[in-house]
Amino acid sequence: MAQGAGAMEALILELSKLPSVGRKSAERLAFHLLRAPRDEALALSEAIRAMRESVRRCSVCANITEDDPCPICRNEIRRRDVICVVEDPMDIAAFEKSGAFDGLYHVLDGCLSPLQGITAEDLRIDSLERRVREGGIRELVLATNPSVDGEATALYLHRLLAPHVESVTRIGLGLPMGSSLEYADSQTLKKAFEGRTVLL
Amino acid sequence: MAQGAGAMEALILELSKLPSVGRKSAERLAFHLLRAPRDEALALSEAIRAMRESVRRCSVCANITEDDPCPICRNEIRRRDVICVVEDPMDIAAFEKSGAFDGLYHVLDGCLSPLQGITAEDLRIDSLERRVREGGIRELVLATNPSVDGEATALYLHRLLAPHVESVTRIGLGLPMGSSLEYADSQTLKKAFEGRTVLL
Repeated sequence: MAQGAGAMEALILELSKLPSVGRKSAERLAFHLLRAPRDEALALSEAIRAMRESVRRCSVCANITEDDPCPICRNEIRRRDVICVVEDPMDIAAFEKSGAFDGLYHVLDGCLSPLQGITAEDLRIDSLERRVREGGIRELVLATNPSVDGEATALYLHRLLAPHVESVTRIGLGLPMGSSLEYADSQTLKKAFEGRTVLL
Repeated sequence: MAQGAGAMEALILELSKLPSVGRKSAERLAFHLLRAPRDEALALSEAIRAMRESVRRCSVCANITEDDPCPICRNEIRRRDVICVVEDPMDIAAFEKSGAFDGLYHVLDGCLSPLQGITAEDLRIDSLERRVREGGIRELVLATNPSVDGEATALYLHRLLAPHVESVTRIGLGLPMGSSLEYADSQTLKKAFEGRTVLL
């Protein structure tokens, strides 16, 4: 960076700590923030600060929220006997957008990954077990990602929690809507075959 | 976004105004800022604010700076009879990093572009002409980008300013170091041929 623009250099350094933002992108973003209307740049600064001040994790499901418990956990209209287990708060956002589910959630904050050294103790499995043991849960929907680690995590949770609930289910794995058989990978085809359903 | 996380949604909206950051990337960045240590997120917020408060443009060369004139314009050791004309403050940073040049700069803030409706009045050409007319400048190095518009801008500046300086030069165009003739495009090869130099 040009000498004397220490504040610019400091901003570039902070920006390049963001995921998938390298030095070049950080420079581009910093220059954008310099050229953008003053209000726009300060709005971003303020939005980051406000988010960190006000957003916390729900003490029940670990969803992100400004109030604790989160609006989903407090919502009396939602089904309270089904918990959908996800890896990440972003997954809740995706499900909510789809409108596919109206029960409660539980965020694990990741999935078991022996290679990355992530064990059951690193995830929010204890609190899930507590919620399930308290009773009143009929179904546990395991919605971890369809990856090797996500599958292993689902299997682990199934074994651990099946004794305490009526049923443990796994979200459907198979061909995504709008895709083409021709281009599907063989693992997906295998899962689609295994997960075939009877048409009545 | 999950209901109730208004501050999160606000941050995602602000982030998606950044160049080449779509909704998905903005969500990923926002979640990173949520998970990152509190200090790191607030440091970014503060760096944006500090940059907008302290960084301005140099009244002489339009480089970005915290002091006016900028350290380059104030530096008595640099050659003061050569001005390198660039499109953008980032170009100054690139030249400074290379250590190739120890004269003064002038930022145009873009280049002539009839298609985008950018004319000479939209660029900092007036102030460049003023600097050149004041005298004392022996050489003007035109370092606009090697694009159609950059070339046209260099040609325009050459015609406009040649009467007032001893020489107007264009940065060398040709094959970049470490590249291969085999993969060079024909425009680059043409420029490389035109710009061949005599070996003594």
